[in-house]
Amino acid sequence: MDDKAQIQEAIKTQGEVVRKLKSEKASKEQIDEEVAKLLQLKARLGGDDGKHQFVLKTAKGTRDYNPKQMAIREKVFKTIISCFKRHGAETIDTPVFELKETLTGKYGEDSKLIYDLKDQGGELLSLRYDLTVPFARYLAMNKITNIKRYHIAKVYRRDNPAMTRGRYREFYQCDFDIAGQYDGMIPDAECLKIVYEILSELNLGDFRIKVNDRRILDGMFAVCGVPDDKFRTICSTVDKLDKMSWEDVKKEMVNEKGLSEEAADQIGEYVSMQGGMDLAERLLQDQKMSQSKQACAGLSDIKLLFSYLQLFQVTDKVVFDLSLARGLDYYTGIIYEAVLTQAGVAPVPAEAQNGAPAEESVSVGSVAGGGRYDGLVGMFDPKGRKVPCVGVSIGIERIFSIMEQKAEASAEKVRTTEVQIMVASAQKNLLEERLKLVTELWNAGIKAEVMYKKNPKLLSQLQHCEESGIPLVAILGEQELKDGVVKLRVVATREEVDISRADLIGEIRRRTSEA
Amino acid sequence: MDDKAQIQEAIKTQGEVVRKLKSEKASKEQIDEEVAKLLQLKARLGGDDGKHQFVLKTAKGTRDYNPKQMAIREKVFKTIISCFKRHGAETIDTPVFELKETLTGKYGEDSKLIYDLKDQGGELLSLRYDLTVPFARYLAMNKITNIKRYHIAKVYRRDNPAMTRGRYREFYQCDFDIAGQYDGMIPDAECLKIVYEILSELNLGDFRIKVNDRRILDGMFAVCGVPDDKFRTICSTVDKLDKMSWEDVKKEMVNEKGLSEEAADQIGEYVSMQGGMDLAERLLQDQKMSQSKQACAGLSDIKLLFSYLQLFQVTDKVVFDLSLARGLDYYTGIIYEAVLTQAGVAPVPAEAQNGAPAEESVSVGSVAGGGRYDGLVGMFDPKGRKVPCVGVSIGIERIFSIMEQKAEASAEKVRTTEVQIMVASAQKNLLEERLKLVTELWNAGIKAEVMYKKNPKLLSQLQHCEESGIPLVAILGEQELKDGVVKLRVVATREEVDISRADLIGEIRRRTSEA
Repeated sequence: MDDKAQIQEAIKTQGEVVRKLKSEKASKEQIDEEVAKLLQLKARLGGDDGKHQFVLKTAKGTRDYNPKQMAIREKVFKTIISCFKRHGAETIDTPVFELKETLTGKYGEDSKLIYDLKDQGGELLSLRYDLTVPFARYLAMNKITNIKRYHIAKVYRRDNPAMTRGRYREFYQCDFDIAGQYDGMIPDAECLKIVYEILSELNLGDFRIKVNDRRILDGMFAVCGVPDDKFRTICSTVDKLDKMSWEDVKKEMVNEKGLSEEAADQIGEYVSMQGGMDLAERLLQDQKMSQSKQACAGLSDIKLLFSYLQLFQVTDKVVFDLSLARGLDYYTGIIYEAVLTQAGVAPVPAEAQNGAPAEESVSVGSVAGGGRYDGLVGMFDPKGRKVPCVGVSIGIERIFSIMEQKAEASAEKVRTTEVQIMVASAQKNLLEERLKLVTELWNAGIKAEVMYKKNPKLLSQLQHCEESGIPLVAILGEQELKDGVVKLRVVATREEVDISRADLIGEIRRRTSEA
Repeated sequence: MDDKAQIQEAIKTQGEVVRKLKSEKASKEQIDEEVAKLLQLKARLGGDDGKHQFVLKTAKGTRDYNPKQMAIREKVFKTIISCFKRHGAETIDTPVFELKETLTGKYGEDSKLIYDLKDQGGELLSLRYDLTVPFARYLAMNKITNIKRYHIAKVYRRDNPAMTRGRYREFYQCDFDIAGQYDGMIPDAECLKIVYEILSELNLGDFRIKVNDRRILDGMFAVCGVPDDKFRTICSTVDKLDKMSWEDVKKEMVNEKGLSEEAADQIGEYVSMQGGMDLAERLLQDQKMSQSKQACAGLSDIKLLFSYLQLFQVTDKVVFDLSLARGLDYYTGIIYEAVLTQAGVAPVPAEAQNGAPAEESVSVGSVAGGGRYDGLVGMFDPKGRKVPCVGVSIGIERIFSIMEQKAEASAEKVRTTEVQIMVASAQKNLLEERLKLVTELWNAGIKAEVMYKKNPKLLSQLQHCEESGIPLVAILGEQELKDGVVKLRVVATREEVDISRADLIGEIRRRTSEA
């Protein structure tokens, strides 16, 4: 029976949960709780009484959004989209799944996290892992060489997410990208301006934007004596510097990846450097670094970038940071990442602007990232024609989490509807009159509600207004109907005033227009 | 090699395409074209030169949305969402995939169209088939007994879609549902009011909303002598009446489903009936029909429904139509479906209001549908507690298709950005000045663009404005900089006027504010 198979599957899953918790040495309470669930499932399998029984949950690593969360999400999206539109972006959409081969070979080691669809006959499909590869496929397929677009949609990664920190297997990405052959660093600088504007407007506390360049990293690896075929793997080790100490990173380089201690130490010196335009200038004079053409090209671009960032008035938050690596394979030039610095704890120190190493600050994680990927579109074009691209992705899930925490901490209630008025009655047998009035209001574009009861109590109608923040009530009674008026009640003040039916719509608009 | 596997997969897919075309007796040109593609692929496999080669397409039955389509989509969503909000709905979101068992057994015969994810270890997952079952799962899981919510998101069906008619394997649904124990037919009537408002506001031409009730259908089947165990299958045959003639439907009932000719003929008589409240009254008196308690309950509710629809002022488009069946298993009461009647060709005839059969009109397909499903939430509740629900789903893809055709036919250009002004220069070496000015504008909230070139030609800057509908240009030159002004050019009229830098932002706002 199908049901039985379902329960067996659930038992398997639950078994995994328990094993994982044990291996992670989770708390006894936590393990006990999950074991109880497992036993419950097993009991159900034994005594199957033929009734449908379901495990009531969302898939691992995913979540529903309730109305309150949606209200917050809408607000965040509105801020982000209006920034993208202010910068003249169009928007596109692509399907949630792509041909498997479209995603293959674009993500390096992370490819194992791609969700595949079952082969049910026909094409082999996978869920999109990000919005960048589908964007490149779209450009190549439609032979588009110039576009500035944003795309807000969900992407999928079979990660082991820490959901409490706002990481999920299904999560939103908000991407802004500029494709086209342009003069150096102008679109790149605009991407950073956009990150700056969005993080400022969302009011998330202080932040800093780290920038680096893949060519600087590669040049650095070369002059430090890293063999060519180890660039990528050493790069992904450097990428762990935001989570691991330098000692541990060095250990991984030397012990696991077989790098010489000397090379590792030289890398260690460079990756501790942070600064601004003058650090780029200093490194252009650096005896070793200046031997790499690649590094010099990257350093000159960083200089140019900072000159534009000055015009854009955003240098107070941007740091040139040689430890920034970023995992994805497809970056070819500048890369960047924005992190929130715990409000007030560790702002960007003044010296950071002057090329001196900045103090370590407690990072609460990346909230935006991106870079230049000039080769990706060419991987899709039959003739390999390249379309240079640079873009940024806003880490919206973490931002949602922070906004939710803020909303919870604040006294202000989050409204989940925009209803302006409730049409209520004080006496019985007025359903028809209520429906007539609410129709008048709807037809005039007023957001209005009526209770779906023949004879609701006035108190319960008023309570509904209190609970959902509806500011006004139009109360109908025999007397009001006779007089051709409506009793308009202000929920907050309990003030009541008779308004003629002819004036009602104008009065509601006046009282609920947002100043 | 991975590449090779990809090409082999592509060959397999392409082979299927060719076979399908041949079996469908497609045109010779079409078959030749696809065979050519197949040969190309095979050639590539032979002479694999190691370069990455991709089949550049989206998955079968899916499509990208380009910026113009997105602009139309945004407009349609805005209309629909503002209607949902006017009626006081909250919104929620659920993951794109659910545990497979959540979807199992909810869709009847259509279950074979569900997309499953590959078993990569862990839970068995499927893509959501609609938004209704996840909604029911959400209610049961969170023990919610009252909510009015809308949900706009993509759903997935492994159908063989006719994409030219706006049908896809990945498509949007826009659902509005009211859950809760309320007095009869009030929320049901509001759902129809909402369909009426949305279809009117979208200006898609004339439409009609057919209503029926599952209990009337079941009662009708009973009194016509359909055996109990054939209700569902006969119901799904009746559902084909909008695509097949009665003769063919009857043939299917008698020949394929083994119904007696007599029973079929009796059904045939009923399903040809259309009307309004008085048809319900007439059928309540009908000798046969009145023998079914179920049918009588349904007919009384239809009467009550029409009395509310009169108060809502929507009866001119609503028809009680006994041929309406709808496929899904979960409906328990009233069902409805809105169809566009080709504008001007066949509006709802006046007699339809009076209970006489309406003339057949050319249907261009359903654009909304829904009904009452009082048992679905109970299927998820461990104790089977029911939450009565009624809802409607707007068939947004077909609406997009129509709006797109309209936009193409109309002379008016669809703007894909909202940029108010372009910051341009008439001379060389003014990049810094342009970046400074555009920063001022962005910081003031003006939607502005600048070309990413050091020295763009004025002509190409103006051309970009023409192409993308930007109404204003701020032109900088040596003289303007000296005088502390900007030359403001109106793209449409070519009028130019000098504006002081201090007044510029106010002037832009004045000239681009929507009246």
